[in-house]
Amino acid sequence: MQKPSIPKGTRDFSPEEMAKRNYIFNTIREVYHLYGFQQIETPAMENLSTLMGKYGEEGDKLLFKILNSGDCFSGITDEELLERNAVKFGVKACEKGLRYDLTVPFARFVVQHRNEITFPFKRYQIQPVWRADRPQRGRYREFYQCDGDVVGSDSLVNEVELIQIMDEVFRRFGIRVCIKMNNRKILSGIAEIIGEADKIVDITVAIDKLDKIGLDNVNEELRSKELSEDAIARLQPIIMLKGTNREKLAVLKQELAASEIAMKGVAEMEFILDRIDKLPLNAELELDLTLARGLNYYTGAIFEVKALDVQIGSITGGGRYDNLTGVFGMDGVSGVGISFGADRIFDVLNQLDLYPADSLQTTQLLFVNFGEKEENYLLPLISKVRAAGIRTELYPEAAKMKKQMGYADTKKIPFVAIVGENEMNEGKINLKNMLTGEQSPVTIEELIGQF
Amino acid sequence: MQKPSIPKGTRDFSPEEMAKRNYIFNTIREVYHLYGFQQIETPAMENLSTLMGKYGEEGDKLLFKILNSGDCFSGITDEELLERNAVKFGVKACEKGLRYDLTVPFARFVVQHRNEITFPFKRYQIQPVWRADRPQRGRYREFYQCDGDVVGSDSLVNEVELIQIMDEVFRRFGIRVCIKMNNRKILSGIAEIIGEADKIVDITVAIDKLDKIGLDNVNEELRSKELSEDAIARLQPIIMLKGTNREKLAVLKQELAASEIAMKGVAEMEFILDRIDKLPLNAELELDLTLARGLNYYTGAIFEVKALDVQIGSITGGGRYDNLTGVFGMDGVSGVGISFGADRIFDVLNQLDLYPADSLQTTQLLFVNFGEKEENYLLPLISKVRAAGIRTELYPEAAKMKKQMGYADTKKIPFVAIVGENEMNEGKINLKNMLTGEQSPVTIEELIGQF
Repeated sequence: MQKPSIPKGTRDFSPEEMAKRNYIFNTIREVYHLYGFQQIETPAMENLSTLMGKYGEEGDKLLFKILNSGDCFSGITDEELLERNAVKFGVKACEKGLRYDLTVPFARFVVQHRNEITFPFKRYQIQPVWRADRPQRGRYREFYQCDGDVVGSDSLVNEVELIQIMDEVFRRFGIRVCIKMNNRKILSGIAEIIGEADKIVDITVAIDKLDKIGLDNVNEELRSKELSEDAIARLQPIIMLKGTNREKLAVLKQELAASEIAMKGVAEMEFILDRIDKLPLNAELELDLTLARGLNYYTGAIFEVKALDVQIGSITGGGRYDNLTGVFGMDGVSGVGISFGADRIFDVLNQLDLYPADSLQTTQLLFVNFGEKEENYLLPLISKVRAAGIRTELYPEAAKMKKQMGYADTKKIPFVAIVGENEMNEGKINLKNMLTGEQSPVTIEELIGQF
Repeated sequence: MQKPSIPKGTRDFSPEEMAKRNYIFNTIREVYHLYGFQQIETPAMENLSTLMGKYGEEGDKLLFKILNSGDCFSGITDEELLERNAVKFGVKACEKGLRYDLTVPFARFVVQHRNEITFPFKRYQIQPVWRADRPQRGRYREFYQCDGDVVGSDSLVNEVELIQIMDEVFRRFGIRVCIKMNNRKILSGIAEIIGEADKIVDITVAIDKLDKIGLDNVNEELRSKELSEDAIARLQPIIMLKGTNREKLAVLKQELAASEIAMKGVAEMEFILDRIDKLPLNAELELDLTLARGLNYYTGAIFEVKALDVQIGSITGGGRYDNLTGVFGMDGVSGVGISFGADRIFDVLNQLDLYPADSLQTTQLLFVNFGEKEENYLLPLISKVRAAGIRTELYPEAAKMKKQMGYADTKKIPFVAIVGENEMNEGKINLKNMLTGEQSPVTIEELIGQF
């Protein structure tokens, strides 16, 4: 007999884990709704032609491919088979693959439904994605993404609102965060000014180490990446950038004045900061030039959220991009979006034990079952309790009292109702508070009033 | 440039469709919670060894198999490759497959987590399943199932509560339904009594046609299935079974008295009916001997729900089974469950136009954008409106009024707020009701009070 298991890198979610995950998804969902975002869903399987080539060569290898049903060998010669080239074979024997992220399916969706969509299109999407990555702690082959994007609008008001959304979500979670912001145009400007356009990643990586390794070592690292002395000299004020966001912007304005694109990025930053300053933000918002996520992809603002009280990577990220849909033949659709990392948020909430008690509680009230007579008496009564919206169970059989109370304990049911011969005669319900141990006889109206 | 599309038999869901689907899932979810069911989730991918052989030979062919990442040819000889046997190859080149239903993964879950589960285990699960069926109207390759089961309890109270759950779900939807109930033990008894144990499906199929083709033709059909004249004679009272559930039970009690198993089935029916009679049921509950779903699987009660006002197959079904987990080496786990057909319920709600208005409405209030000055004035104001829980948008740019109003129209936003120079000076908001066209100046407090 086989011992059952699940594929490595995948997970079952227990009732308690599901309650926690639903709390996370519902919170994110509610905040998206508050800002007018609407949900869409796309199929788990996309045509491989939609997915291939969108995530680089490495990404192509990480796609889960679905073997064609029926004759998967059709159109493949014996010679090709004997070549045993898994990649080539995969493309021929598989038409479909599991989605790798929510962005490419979203781009496909926008192009395919362009005539039904009202732009600007504010959509959110909460669905699993699959990657044939090597599983490791905190990295799974199936995990959820929670993306929100506004496409078809260049307005920076969208950036402002996305910052508000991130802020509101983490305020609701009770997670103290820093929202870091950068701008691709400023990074481009820096590279332009020092004449090292292709070294932008090396530069941000080195700058990021200033606190850890000190200025001399940062400069040494830049030298090892073959930046010229002149470039390194020009970089000094930028490496040493500190102070408030406004102070940082002032330095950038001065140092990067000669770069038109940098000035555009600075103006965008100022626009956003000007508005955020007048809004009640809970989180810190920090201009951080070392933020270099999605450099091939983002064209304006870049966001990243760090939890302040837990050592963990970024728990949310995003940015502005041009031409989301160009690869599918529809130009001119720019947008800006964010993605909440549900699995990491789950870890943070667990570590800080921040789940509200009522998000974890399922059944509110358990009726003990003493036998057929009591059962018959209780069924219509329980029906009334449920009609009042109280999540209620009747233990389905007359098991030993200890077993029934143990059931209430492990399910964390806060109240147990005991109705035996006496209670039936008196028309009362003996209500036990499982937390305090207190027990008192109540009428059904009083019982309903308790919740 | 490729024209994007999705695999046949799969669907994108638009914001409006998602709102409708969420209404369906949330309603089902809430009722499950009301009865103490807890949610679990299992991975989309299961090991093929978990899935294969569980759905018959036909089912094995309908499994979507996932090509092993890395070298999918390892362990396969050249000779085997040149055989081009897709089924054999699939099993060797694919370790994983997409789940085909929620029952087998649930059985696997129960066995794998037996030590963490408190029995009786009331779980529900709402997730997509995938089948490589030929797509046709109303049949998809990706669709959701909404299963609820109680395992580890033989008590018929569970059947009673599942009937209440089905009743409550369709009461909330406003769909008039008939809940049909049969019992596998009664069917076994009939077959036993007439000495034709293996013809039970033929018999139920023939009985089912009575209204359409008349008694003579039903008997003719039974003869064509090689039932003996004696057997057909003994079947007459059962074929002609009608009247109330109690009247039907009385006939069965008399005709099937010699069959111990039939009498057990009748007693189960009576137990359930006795209890349901004392409960406020909205739907009809009808004893229907022609119900023959899952005959290889169900061992007691069998349920099916039919919509009364729409021509469509069953929209929910279920029953009691023994030995859910025997195939995974854990015996003695019986249970009873139901499965709501979300896609068909979606069709019924659409046809009858039964969605509550507030289930479809997303954004409640749109602020028109006249330009940077107004935008800056509005952002903090809108922040207050949102803090009051009102789903609010600011149109992200100063587009033409017509375009902004069109946006509100297509998104079905019921209120539009207009704040220009005058309104800013007076500290008022011009609030337009998009349904009536009425427009009036209000303060922010008055505006918030409106919702």
